Amino acid sequence: MDILLVGFGAMNKRVAAIAEESGHNISGVVTPETKIDASYPIFTNFDNPLPEVDVVIDFSHPTLTTQLLNSTISAPLIIATTGDKDTLVDLMQKKAKTQPVFFSANMSYGVHILTEIIKYATPLLQDFDIEMIEKHHNQKVDAPSGTLVKLYDAIVQNSRQDAQPVYDRHEKSEKRDNREIGISSIRGGTIVGEHEVLYAGHDEVISIKHTAQSKDIFASGALTVAAQLLNKPNGYYTYNNLGE
Amino acid sequence: MDILLVGFGAMNKRVAAIAEESGHNISGVVTPETKIDASYPIFTNFDNPLPEVDVVIDFSHPTLTTQLLNSTISAPLIIATTGDKDTLVDLMQKKAKTQPVFFSANMSYGVHILTEIIKYATPLLQDFDIEMIEKHHNQKVDAPSGTLVKLYDAIVQNSRQDAQPVYDRHEKSEKRDNREIGISSIRGGTIVGEHEVLYAGHDEVISIKHTAQSKDIFASGALTVAAQLLNKPNGYYTYNNLGE
Amino acid sequence: MDILLVGFGAMNKRVAAIAEESGHNISGVVTPETKIDASYPIFTNFDNPLPEVDVVIDFSHPTLTTQLLNSTISAPLIIATTGDKDTLVDLMQKKAKTQPVFFSANMSYGVHILTEIIKYATPLLQDFDIEMIEKHHNQKVDAPSGTLVKLYDAIVQNSRQDAQPVYDRHEKSEKRDNREIGISSIRGGTIVGEHEVLYAGHDEVISIKHTAQSKDIFASGALTVAAQLLNKPNGYYTYNNLGE
Amino acid sequence: MDILLVGFGAMNKRVAAIAEESGHNISGVVTPETKIDASYPIFTNFDNPLPEVDVVIDFSHPTLTTQLLNSTISAPLIIATTGDKDTLVDLMQKKAKTQPVFFSANMSYGVHILTEIIKYATPLLQDFDIEMIEKHHNQKVDAPSGTLVKLYDAIVQNSRQDAQPVYDRHEKSEKRDNREIGISSIRGGTIVGEHEVLYAGHDEVISIKHTAQSKDIFASGALTVAAQLLNKPNGYYTYNNLGE
Repeated sequence: MDILLVGFGAMNKRVAAIAEESGHNISGVVTPETKIDASYPIFTNFDNPLPEVDVVIDFSHPTLTTQLLNSTISAPLIIATTGDKDTLVDLMQKKAKTQPVFFSANMSYGVHILTEIIKYATPLLQDFDIEMIEKHHNQKVDAPSGTLVKLYDAIVQNSRQDAQPVYDRHEKSEKRDNREIGISSIRGGTIVGEHEVLYAGHDEVISIKHTAQSKDIFASGALTVAAQLLNKPNGYYTYNNLGE
Repeated sequence: MDILLVGFGAMNKRVAAIAEESGHNISGVVTPETKIDASYPIFTNFDNPLPEVDVVIDFSHPTLTTQLLNSTISAPLIIATTGDKDTLVDLMQKKAKTQPVFFSANMSYGVHILTEIIKYATPLLQDFDIEMIEKHHNQKVDAPSGTLVKLYDAIVQNSRQDAQPVYDRHEKSEKRDNREIGISSIRGGTIVGEHEVLYAGHDEVISIKHTAQSKDIFASGALTVAAQLLNKPNGYYTYNNLGE
Repeated sequence: MDILLVGFGAMNKRVAAIAEESGHNISGVVTPETKIDASYPIFTNFDNPLPEVDVVIDFSHPTLTTQLLNSTISAPLIIATTGDKDTLVDLMQKKAKTQPVFFSANMSYGVHILTEIIKYATPLLQDFDIEMIEKHHNQKVDAPSGTLVKLYDAIVQNSRQDAQPVYDRHEKSEKRDNREIGISSIRGGTIVGEHEVLYAGHDEVISIKHTAQSKDIFASGALTVAAQLLNKPNGYYTYNNLGE
Repeated sequence: MDILLVGFGAMNKRVAAIAEESGHNISGVVTPETKIDASYPIFTNFDNPLPEVDVVIDFSHPTLTTQLLNSTISAPLIIATTGDKDTLVDLMQKKAKTQPVFFSANMSYGVHILTEIIKYATPLLQDFDIEMIEKHHNQKVDAPSGTLVKLYDAIVQNSRQDAQPVYDRHEKSEKRDNREIGISSIRGGTIVGEHEVLYAGHDEVISIKHTAQSKDIFASGALTVAAQLLNKPNGYYTYNNLGE
């Protein structure tokens, strides 16, 4: 595949490395940063004449992704940006009328399966209290993680419509309401990413946990999706409907 | 409910306590041990004239359970005995022609749901290596636990027909074969019971774990099943078909 | 030992049960609640003529403990009350001039050893980020737990004098400052108590964790301390100086 | 530093990469394999005229390490080879008469501290049952890991002189003897390395665990040791006496 990268942070650097190891070609990188040490053609915005590519992979930030979605690029898009989800999904769904657009806040196959398992398990555990815990490295600026938000949404839509997220129990002095879903964000060292859902019942606890060892799971997930998206009709895709 | 207990070890003592707290009646206990300190009528075998009851709950051992299944008792049976599974299931299925018979090596509702989750997750994680870990107290004589064996069977029947259990890697000096399922039994202190299935893939691991805090989960599970079994037609039941 | 209990909540009920199993005698209970279903003499306050005892065990709340410390009781005191720590410690130290007074927010021997391990490990892991996690049942009203606060104090006094506790990362949008110590409180089901300290470094994490299976660890810890306190000179004791 | 590498497997490739990032120089590699894709001078054995270096780092296997220890190389040696420990330590101690020789089966600083914590904690937890668990990737041929063996030795020498390792509970049918130390080896996916020591007591468990996220912890550990070893007098060193 000929690939255009949008953003050139840690994630797209790994996409580039893994893509080239697999025989793919990085045709260019769009990034506003000018001091990029890379052997690929660099474009500071989407007004430049960009190379023809098979697919675009975007691990960037909402500003740049918005520019991508407002550009005239017509190749299939794989978007992995977190933040401003509602606005971006609107734009992606418009763009999806003219080309395939795939979006996931977490490109890992394992996290996708984690989400499916949580959707399956939650309705079976109605009487259990749910708590969610995520762990990431000390350079991460947002909390909770985009993946946790996605898992939370899956739980609520599925069978906990009256759920209330609780981020801090420190200032409260009352028993846990059974509609609460506690959300804890741990930060430290270089932890790549861990997401856990706890179901705590009477004298028993079920824990479902995903641990990422390296960011390669996101990069290789994006490349796997890219290969599938090439053959898809126009439309808006997520892991939920990609395999259909 | 009027209940006859078969066996009077730690588990049936808890069944008796929880049953009475919930307003049920323990009509008698069948146990070959004569030095029982209990306020219930004690019967040393099934030849005695036994009280009429609504249901029989058996947390004992294969010898006593075999006697129960060869007796003329006609009430619904809940059997939680571990060991000699094949022989006992044969006897239970014969007995099930004349009355409802429920069997589970683990009466906990949470363990049942754990099993369902494992059945759901395993086919989705074909490329992942599976390892199983269970932890119990230092008085437990058998290993692995009956519950782990049940989980293992669920995995194999579901999507790993060529699986090979591996109990000891200490004497081997070779890479893991991808058909292996490692099984580790931890023993120590008063640990009530923990069962974990690990799916280890490329740079990511999914863990699904059940932790029991007290044996009450088995006793209250047996009583919950008993209440449902009262209204069932004759037949052989497990958690898999009880809810149908 | 002849024991006077102060408070008759879940913990002192277990102290009473375990004490009697071990051949000790509960001489009475001081509690303002009048609807107590107990076979012991009940006293609503400390103005009553109270029985002569060998030791007093207090698992209550700051109000009742303050009354105890202002009373004329002269037996050795074991205080396990949480909350209002500074005020209570002042009162305990005054009282300690006339009798032995032992205080711990957590009577478990294992938690005491956990604290010692944390004190030992923290100075060796100066470059690691510290995060603390505690889990308790859904009826607990305070957060974080008294035990976590004690562990936090041990960490700070030992080698992290400039530490800043962080209870909520949800509203922030910035990288972790290396002086931060994140504190997460999980609540659900009937979880008895779990305390974990994470040291997250460059590509490695050390976790030190204590899990309580039942509240008996606190009750039996209090009785073990009581037996030792009988033979001690007047003074203020904690787990740190009890063994000296 | 000018560095000679012995072996050029995954670990020494990382040592080379991290060393060069830090401004050090790889002067050559000794390895019997001839199809090495590397930009360094390759030497197939120690009979060749080798470059003058400041330090030698050996992540290889007992055969090659034995050749190194029998060679005339006079620079400080850092040996991280696992297997044939007794024989190699004998050779290293002889070699240490003429130059500084450092040996560790696990070069990670965190694992070293884990070992120190275990040495501190074990004598305080005499009444607790000890179980050890290690997890590694599915390509590892030996079990248990060298690091686990080192931790086990630390426990036994410290306060469990009568310990008996138990690798398989599957064929036994008896209660746990309190001298047992259970050892479980989990293998799957690309797990880098996890070592846990469980202390299981009456209704409480203490767990001390180290998780490695990447093999870089071993490579950077070796380089950190190398920098310290340069200034040391001749002698045999481990993490236990390096800091003295």
